Amino acid sequence: MATKRIGIQTLRLENPPSIIGTASIVGPKEGEGPLGSYFDLILDDDTWGQKSFEKAEARMQEEAIKLAITNAKLSIKDIHFLIAGDLLNQIISSSYTARQIGIPYFGLYGACSTMSESLCLGSMLIDGGFADKVVCATSSHFSSAERQFRFPLEYGAQRKYTSQWTVTGAGATVLSSTGNGPYITYLTPGKIQDYGIKDANNMGAAMAPAAFDTIIQHFKDTGYTPDDYDLIITGDLGLIGRRIVVDLLEKEGYSISDKFSDCGIKIFDGVQQDTHAGGSGCACSAVVFNSYIYKEMIKGNINRVLLISTGALHSPISTLQGESIPGIAHAVTIDNLSS
Amino acid sequence: MATKRIGIQTLRLENPPSIIGTASIVGPKEGEGPLGSYFDLILDDDTWGQKSFEKAEARMQEEAIKLAITNAKLSIKDIHFLIAGDLLNQIISSSYTARQIGIPYFGLYGACSTMSESLCLGSMLIDGGFADKVVCATSSHFSSAERQFRFPLEYGAQRKYTSQWTVTGAGATVLSSTGNGPYITYLTPGKIQDYGIKDANNMGAAMAPAAFDTIIQHFKDTGYTPDDYDLIITGDLGLIGRRIVVDLLEKEGYSISDKFSDCGIKIFDGVQQDTHAGGSGCACSAVVFNSYIYKEMIKGNINRVLLISTGALHSPISTLQGESIPGIAHAVTIDNLSS
Repeated sequence: MATKRIGIQTLRLENPPSIIGTASIVGPKEGEGPLGSYFDLILDDDTWGQKSFEKAEARMQEEAIKLAITNAKLSIKDIHFLIAGDLLNQIISSSYTARQIGIPYFGLYGACSTMSESLCLGSMLIDGGFADKVVCATSSHFSSAERQFRFPLEYGAQRKYTSQWTVTGAGATVLSSTGNGPYITYLTPGKIQDYGIKDANNMGAAMAPAAFDTIIQHFKDTGYTPDDYDLIITGDLGLIGRRIVVDLLEKEGYSISDKFSDCGIKIFDGVQQDTHAGGSGCACSAVVFNSYIYKEMIKGNINRVLLISTGALHSPISTLQGESIPGIAHAVTIDNLSS
Repeated sequence: MATKRIGIQTLRLENPPSIIGTASIVGPKEGEGPLGSYFDLILDDDTWGQKSFEKAEARMQEEAIKLAITNAKLSIKDIHFLIAGDLLNQIISSSYTARQIGIPYFGLYGACSTMSESLCLGSMLIDGGFADKVVCATSSHFSSAERQFRFPLEYGAQRKYTSQWTVTGAGATVLSSTGNGPYITYLTPGKIQDYGIKDANNMGAAMAPAAFDTIIQHFKDTGYTPDDYDLIITGDLGLIGRRIVVDLLEKEGYSISDKFSDCGIKIFDGVQQDTHAGGSGCACSAVVFNSYIYKEMIKGNINRVLLISTGALHSPISTLQGESIPGIAHAVTIDNLSS
């Protein structure tokens, strides 16, 4: 029977997996942002010597995975599973990466929720006794995403103030059944929320209800409050989505604004870098988590984090067919203590 | 530590999940095929009253999930997770379905390997104590796939003899921590194999090396031989891919041809139905498994099956950019006995 369930939707890991290595690779613009000093590798050129943006994205993901494994003092043959996904049609960045890595692979599609989706599944595979070491990874690329989801870059479409800027980068996390932390201790996988937003240039508003739903369910299931966390951070709600979540939670009696940030707000200087509502993309929470958050936890400056990567699960076709944008958010507790 | 691993790549489930309900819904052409009498619902019209093929596909997946849950004598609120994916960009069939179902959801992309990918993950979540009931589901639609991966139907492109016909349908499986079987007892998740095939009209050849790799690894890890199975059945290799797997296995000393079939061969009468090399698509192994195989197991006519859904993890973009087609195959042992 399901002995690890608490409340309606949360899982408590009995043998919390330890994060034993991470890596982040970003493009030039991300490197110039406020978190620049935290990233493992900043590219000079966002094609990284490849013939297409798609191939550049796959190369970033592959190198991030290899670097995370190296940082964990392991080699690829020590890893039991690769769990990865990305934004591109048929997740080609992840699948071509998985071909190069050559180990058993589960492909995911969770849009920008992929980092925490993969951490949820990877943690359960380790805690359940199915794997000792798992790598969770994702990537996105501004230029591959723009031309797939919106317009060719050459078209020069004007961006709305609600628009977000897809992060060029890749992040990878090595989870292990043994290690000295930080540990993954709780998971609250999300269900889809859809308040009827149809504007694909306002992803923050489309994803905010899912983040709200998962965060409040996490609090109800565990009995924790914002005071139990040093940092509560969503994936890529940006300025608009973050404000909606704060409002929705306050209506329910939870005041989290002093603990609550968003990876899409952290990664760019919106004014200087002209990124409008903030960063987005699978890589947004992936590179912020695998650099800034992880490194600040190792230093002991942050000890307990709730990471909630957020995904907008539409496609250009579904938008053209008049559908609204379904949002999802998966929450993961990362703790310097294992219990 | 990972106590459930045997050999290099196989997992032995300690508390094998039971399949307690399935459902299959198919289009008219599939209903006219050799397995017609096994399906739960055959549509008269492959748009099923929807305004687009994509919406019809999502409706099939939603209704298959609901029917599987009903067949398991449960209601949606009893289900802890939905694990689903499909072929469409950003897996919109699954995500719009997940919105309607309203429970925690993990989206996958494994192309036509999705059925066994979802069974692998779902089984581990149950065996690991994270869930009591999980629904695994997938869908595909000939007309949504053709226009996305190949040409608009109106163009009337001629089909090669190596071409396969995407199955219109959806299948869903309810897994439970308790039940009277059939049980999922072993999993051999696959790694990508790519022999350099670039012809998107010859998926069987692209996926066959992955099926071969997973099947032989399963035998090596478990010590089982073809004699230990009543049926070894791949997802959608079709006539050409099946022949390649038989040849590759014979070179390694395994003669499986009398036990070995393929869902893509079973579902259509290739001569009468003009389906060339056979059926394909996520729904191919999903509807064959959730109808014919499941029902024959319940009757006791088949007692032990190795299901290996096979996926081709390319995209139209990767093909245009000169990439070959990576294949993957995940194997699942389904047994009327739990050990």
